[in-house]
Amino acid sequence: MKESGIESHKIIRRKHDGKLEYLPDELTIEEPLEIRIGRKTIAITMCTPGHDEELAAGFFFSEGIVRDPGDIADLSLCTDNRVVVELAIGLKAKLKTAQRFGTISSSCGLCGKTRIEAIRQNFPAIRATALRIDIETLLSLPEKLRDAQSDFAHTGGIHAAGIFDVNGELKIAREDIGRHNAVDKAIGRAFLDRLVPLDSHVLLVSGRASFEIIQKTLAAGIPIVAAVSAPSSLAVEFARDSNQTLIGFLRPPSFNIYSHIERVILDQ
Amino acid sequence: MKESGIESHKIIRRKHDGKLEYLPDELTIEEPLEIRIGRKTIAITMCTPGHDEELAAGFFFSEGIVRDPGDIADLSLCTDNRVVVELAIGLKAKLKTAQRFGTISSSCGLCGKTRIEAIRQNFPAIRATALRIDIETLLSLPEKLRDAQSDFAHTGGIHAAGIFDVNGELKIAREDIGRHNAVDKAIGRAFLDRLVPLDSHVLLVSGRASFEIIQKTLAAGIPIVAAVSAPSSLAVEFARDSNQTLIGFLRPPSFNIYSHIERVILDQ
Repeated sequence: MKESGIESHKIIRRKHDGKLEYLPDELTIEEPLEIRIGRKTIAITMCTPGHDEELAAGFFFSEGIVRDPGDIADLSLCTDNRVVVELAIGLKAKLKTAQRFGTISSSCGLCGKTRIEAIRQNFPAIRATALRIDIETLLSLPEKLRDAQSDFAHTGGIHAAGIFDVNGELKIAREDIGRHNAVDKAIGRAFLDRLVPLDSHVLLVSGRASFEIIQKTLAAGIPIVAAVSAPSSLAVEFARDSNQTLIGFLRPPSFNIYSHIERVILDQ
Repeated sequence: MKESGIESHKIIRRKHDGKLEYLPDELTIEEPLEIRIGRKTIAITMCTPGHDEELAAGFFFSEGIVRDPGDIADLSLCTDNRVVVELAIGLKAKLKTAQRFGTISSSCGLCGKTRIEAIRQNFPAIRATALRIDIETLLSLPEKLRDAQSDFAHTGGIHAAGIFDVNGELKIAREDIGRHNAVDKAIGRAFLDRLVPLDSHVLLVSGRASFEIIQKTLAAGIPIVAAVSAPSSLAVEFARDSNQTLIGFLRPPSFNIYSHIERVILDQ
């Protein structure tokens, strides 16, 4: 993941002392990616190049279009900012009934729904299990995710999503200019590796947690979701309903727990 | 703009000293808003309630669907998270040819385009004029925008967009959980007030600058765009092409200039 998705540009910088300098600067690459099923455009997302097949697979999985890697007969990355997916034969009819179309954007996982009711998918709630995470492990996650990113990531131009086990071991980390895309890439990798449901895992996002990010983690069966910044009201309500533990403002040594505290070992 | 779009939830907080407390916390409201033309759903966006008509107007304007307030025959906010727009009679055919559909999301302004080529609208580049802004005025903008927001805004759960004149006077400020929505609301207000083109104005966003944000400002004819965080590669390329001055990391006393430096008065 080091140093990918970056472009150098010459810029003028006003420094703290008021002096100006002309210097090269690094920018996160933002490009359109077209995701097709056969010849049909399903989505256009503004994203950072890299792991495009994972993005497509994660998007289809978290949208409920595919449930198993076998549902994807072929997944090919073209050179012209396009991923073409061929679905297994029986699935084409299913897609038609879903009536999804349109595009997704860099921070958007909701596109292609034509009705308000349609934003809430029908993924089952997480089952109650004995799975728990201790505070020290939880507090260790942000640094581990940052270590997996490039130095550039610290400038704030790129988001990251990391999938950890409950012992705090980082399993998959992905970056993108869009928060939803980073999550789709990480979950897409897990999906393609047949690791879902990720029912003993934690997902950490480097930014905020929207409703749609929680829904994507529910699709993957992830019981604990943590964010470095704020969750939205709907993210909290959704996590409560779906029996997911939602942690926000995870900035050691502090954090907030918004739902299902029972999965965090508080007495140590 | 004070204290709107916020909901209180009880949460558990781990404080810096490691102690836990159970307390009420404020969250940015995220809700779906359906934007219709007559009976047809054009977009569903995840947004923060408030100024919904402005969001719809700004979205339609920056998408090139309407060019003049007279193009909108009626704009009504329903109580059930829905804005219904009635277009002037001649415009209905035009919309059909644009073939836009689908949804937009909280941070997404690109939805509803079915081809990669379609992401770039055909708004004319900003004309060369003598308009310039001095450094002190530029440096004053972030604080003015923050002052127009609630204290809650500082927690990072909500984005803001402000339209200023070149003397640094704040004309319109809007907030939303989505960056694109905040920009749509601010530009939508200016559009409804017949203030576009905003050719002697500056737009400041509290977060990052994506390609789509620059394109929205171009639709409104805004020559100077500033962001508190990073721009993307495509935002910079687009601003260069469209003759817009793009400033990033505007964090007094420093900032970066990515394009068209001639509009910033550097020698004082």
